[in-house]
Amino acid sequence: TRSYAITLLPGDGIGPEVISVAKNVLLLAGAIEGIEFNFHEMPVGGAALDLTGVPLPGETLSAAQQSDAVLLGAIGGYKWDNNEKHLKPETGLLQLREGLKVFANLRPATVLPQLVDASTLKKEVAEGVDLMVVRELTGGIYFGKPRGFSTNQNGEEIGLNTEVYSISEIDRIARVAFETARKRRGKLCSVDKANVLEASMLWRKRVMAIALEYPDVELTHMYVDNAAMQLVRNPKQFDTIVTNNIFGDILSDEASMITGSIGMLPSASLGEKGPGLFEPIHGSAPDIAGQDKANPLATVLSAAMLLKYGLGEADAAERIEAAVLHTLDRGFRTGDIYSDGNKLVGCKEMGEEVLKAV
Amino acid sequence: TRSYAITLLPGDGIGPEVISVAKNVLLLAGAIEGIEFNFHEMPVGGAALDLTGVPLPGETLSAAQQSDAVLLGAIGGYKWDNNEKHLKPETGLLQLREGLKVFANLRPATVLPQLVDASTLKKEVAEGVDLMVVRELTGGIYFGKPRGFSTNQNGEEIGLNTEVYSISEIDRIARVAFETARKRRGKLCSVDKANVLEASMLWRKRVMAIALEYPDVELTHMYVDNAAMQLVRNPKQFDTIVTNNIFGDILSDEASMITGSIGMLPSASLGEKGPGLFEPIHGSAPDIAGQDKANPLATVLSAAMLLKYGLGEADAAERIEAAVLHTLDRGFRTGDIYSDGNKLVGCKEMGEEVLKAV
Ligand SMILES: CC(C)[C@H](C(=O)O)[C@@H](O)C(=O)O
Ligand SMILES: CC(C)[C@H](C(=O)O)[C@@H](O)C(=O)O
Repeated sequence: TRSYAITLLPGDGIGPEVISVAKNVLLLAGAIEGIEFNFHEMPVGGAALDLTGVPLPGETLSAAQQSDAVLLGAIGGYKWDNNEKHLKPETGLLQLREGLKVFANLRPATVLPQLVDASTLKKEVAEGVDLMVVRELTGGIYFGKPRGFSTNQNGEEIGLNTEVYSISEIDRIARVAFETARKRRGKLCSVDKANVLEASMLWRKRVMAIALEYPDVELTHMYVDNAAMQLVRNPKQFDTIVTNNIFGDILSDEASMITGSIGMLPSASLGEKGPGLFEPIHGSAPDIAGQDKANPLATVLSAAMLLKYGLGEADAAERIEAAVLHTLDRGFRTGDIYSDGNKLVGCKEMGEEVLKAV
Repeated sequence: TRSYAITLLPGDGIGPEVISVAKNVLLLAGAIEGIEFNFHEMPVGGAALDLTGVPLPGETLSAAQQSDAVLLGAIGGYKWDNNEKHLKPETGLLQLREGLKVFANLRPATVLPQLVDASTLKKEVAEGVDLMVVRELTGGIYFGKPRGFSTNQNGEEIGLNTEVYSISEIDRIARVAFETARKRRGKLCSVDKANVLEASMLWRKRVMAIALEYPDVELTHMYVDNAAMQLVRNPKQFDTIVTNNIFGDILSDEASMITGSIGMLPSASLGEKGPGLFEPIHGSAPDIAGQDKANPLATVLSAAMLLKYGLGEADAAERIEAAVLHTLDRGFRTGDIYSDGNKLVGCKEMGEEVLKAV
């Protein structure tokens, strides 16, 4: 048996509920495939703030760094919304990404045939959508310096941030994107604002340079405003999208909503080496926390990404993915993806059905 | 008769065709309402580059500054795509906005009952959408300094831009947004990324401060990634949206595509005083330029905004808007908004039908 150390970060809101389901799914799929897991549960986000006064305690980061992979639930909640920046739950997440050096965020947006009606887009526009956003995650305006508050020449207060990318930052995310596209349908669309921003001009130049290493991948470029439109107009035109941190934040959320089922969508954040960070793309949903209403499937599918991208355990990953599809085929639905004729279940029952299917 | 000097900037691609239609509509509506126009046509964008070597000649800017209002067609085209930044058509547009100090960009996104089928969104999601994006247009990352190319501590090349807002810049756009919301349904949603960016934290703080002057307007806040989702999930929840330059670029284009008819959507850019800049939100569409296929209605409706917001001539504006709706009611459609059972017309014929209706 292979054995892996997994750091579980349940976080806030519905985080603990969905992590508990995903943990059981991992245990069972692992047992069948001859994989053993050692789970370490650590606090992050608001939970960590309440417990320790900071959103990412040093013990949590070092546990994460020393493990083979990290599975996160969700962070944030009304309670901490007005905290100062360094005491926001979100800051804990950004510190975790930085601390794990996970610069490549992979966010699939797939419309499952079972759930095509959940999209607000017309059936003929939504069906068959299967795209992947590769978002740069540890650079750009999220981390650029200088940042903060200052005064301008007129003595007026200003707030400022710096969008900055270096050649090596662009090159490494471009390579991940080309590799990803190569394993998919061989099409990569790089999204930038190179008609206005110098940071985007360098981005485009380097993506074009790296493209020479991947002659088998078809590269196109699109401005971010146009990309936001094209995702609505005809999302099927996209295979793999690569973009910077802030544009990726916006476009991956837009793409996920186009599928109509953000309760279903996982993500993987990977570095050059070291453990990856895996998390559902949905938030902590404080309004339904603790009510057994959350959809655990995004976290279960994140656990599958953890197996595939984090541990190289593709068989166990596929077993979990197949179990999720089978559970949907049998008509089980949490409230967020419910439609007439199906069986409405809670978070726990959905978890049990997936376990049966595993 | 009132008399106004109007600078016409046809620009590139389909620009000249749509400006020619809008000019005739202005002339006729003006004649009926007792308004006289003096038109001055000047080059901008790629057309100006070819003619003078710069995308915004000094004569064009000063003509624009000295007129009562400016009507722009479209700028840009493949031919100039690889130009250096200061020789891009887009740079001419940015210089024009800066030169006219038009800091407030109003972009309505309305789903007309006649065109609800043109949206890729389901009918029940699209119908009744009527929102206005108020985008800050002369600040933020578009103009912030420092910007450009440089080297970091490792001697590596970097590209960088600065997202920066001062209190007075935020306050003045917030006031325009509150005034706009007050004349609409009294709801304002301010979009930012205040969980990550200091520039957004100041933005949110000042919008909340200005809200005290508008107790009758209901203010909410939304993160930009969530806004990109909510526009797809339920665009009807929005009345007026206010946001910074780059988020406004992305979200207003997304919102326009949600209506399904970007060939229909006008925009107004206004300053503290001086002439406003009015333009369709669509681009120069070089692929159909000169083929009499363009939809002139976005430019015609921009001319109506020019009358209403630029000259205070609400009656003439309403006459034009009514003529456009009447023309649609009679079934005339350009290719971009064509659906079965309607009459397919070109740019010129559409213009003639609008003239009849005026
Ligand atoms: C919570 C927030 C800091 C985060 C981000 O902006 O990256 C989230 O929106 C995401 O996309 O994971
Ligand atoms: C052409 C470009 C510079 C411009 C912008 O980004 O502002 C355009 O996208 C717009 O929205 O008017």
